[in-house]
Amino acid sequence: MKHLIPLDNLIAALSRLPGIGKRTAERMALALVEDSSGLPRILAHALLEADEGVVCCSRCGSVTLAAENPCELCVRPRRDSHMICVVEHPGDIIKIEESGGYQGRYHALMGKLSAMQGKGAADLRVDTLLKRLPDEKISEVVIALGTDVESDATASYLREVLSTRGVKVSRIAFGLPAGSAIEYSDATTLARAISGRQEMN
Amino acid sequence: MKHLIPLDNLIAALSRLPGIGKRTAERMALALVEDSSGLPRILAHALLEADEGVVCCSRCGSVTLAAENPCELCVRPRRDSHMICVVEHPGDIIKIEESGGYQGRYHALMGKLSAMQGKGAADLRVDTLLKRLPDEKISEVVIALGTDVESDATASYLREVLSTRGVKVSRIAFGLPAGSAIEYSDATTLARAISGRQEMN
Repeated sequence: MKHLIPLDNLIAALSRLPGIGKRTAERMALALVEDSSGLPRILAHALLEADEGVVCCSRCGSVTLAAENPCELCVRPRRDSHMICVVEHPGDIIKIEESGGYQGRYHALMGKLSAMQGKGAADLRVDTLLKRLPDEKISEVVIALGTDVESDATASYLREVLSTRGVKVSRIAFGLPAGSAIEYSDATTLARAISGRQEMN
Repeated sequence: MKHLIPLDNLIAALSRLPGIGKRTAERMALALVEDSSGLPRILAHALLEADEGVVCCSRCGSVTLAAENPCELCVRPRRDSHMICVVEHPGDIIKIEESGGYQGRYHALMGKLSAMQGKGAADLRVDTLLKRLPDEKISEVVIALGTDVESDATASYLREVLSTRGVKVSRIAFGLPAGSAIEYSDATTLARAISGRQEMN
């Protein structure tokens, strides 16, 4: 069957979305061609509007309106302005905000150290983090990265870099997730939960 | 956290893609905001180009260039022009073409009968199929629908409707897929393979 160039281009663009393989992109592209509800134009419009109207905050990296930069999280006076929570992606900030468990400032690295993806420290927003420490008189940096090897490497790197900056460096706790039982926990989670045990007062 | 309207709109539009839930759409939207490779504009452009340049063939429903309508499959003289293969979606035509097992014309219904989705016969391209039979002097209709209940209902409906039209109606075979073993086949597949057994000559 002959290749249709505009369809191939659409499949190629859709394939670049996270988690979308070639087969899924093909299925999406065909559904878009078959669609009679105007979805292709609605989606194109939404993409252009978001591209113009939504940015990553120049200070913390969180998603914000282009018209509100630095973002609300960076400027709201009620928040603890001497604490910075370091995350991998802007989406992590949304998750932590939803948890209600943190009231300080944020800093998204826009990635983590990754030999696989060829990402080094220079590719992360570490310089801007270091600059913020004296500028904002930061006293504690909370590292909120995941539990994989690359997150561990990134956390170790940050601890090293921050060790001479006169700030307290902490990392969020690893242990049993809410609602889980010992019986169903994997060995690594249990080992981490035990080594991270806290004294009961 | 405050809602960003352009981001919410993008998430809503992405959620309408097939197989994309709200969580996945959120992840995609955040990746698009974070993206620094120009993907939002590339994707928007590809959507608009495809929306203008690619259509479903007005005759068979296959995807084709807007400038080639009726499509190549409908007009190519080398193909058997007295046979129509009825499929659910344009994507099915691509799969069958890739198989190399069919050389006739096609007709995509753009769906199947579905009580769940409220799809009746009037929502499918049945009228245009019936009109094509005398116009193109069709002698055989091959129904190439899947094996689910809705496909079975649609096939039965078509057989009924076509019974008075003087055409042979066939349905593609169900049985063991290529490379499979009896040992690993499920009961329904085996039962269908046995009832569909063919005499060996």
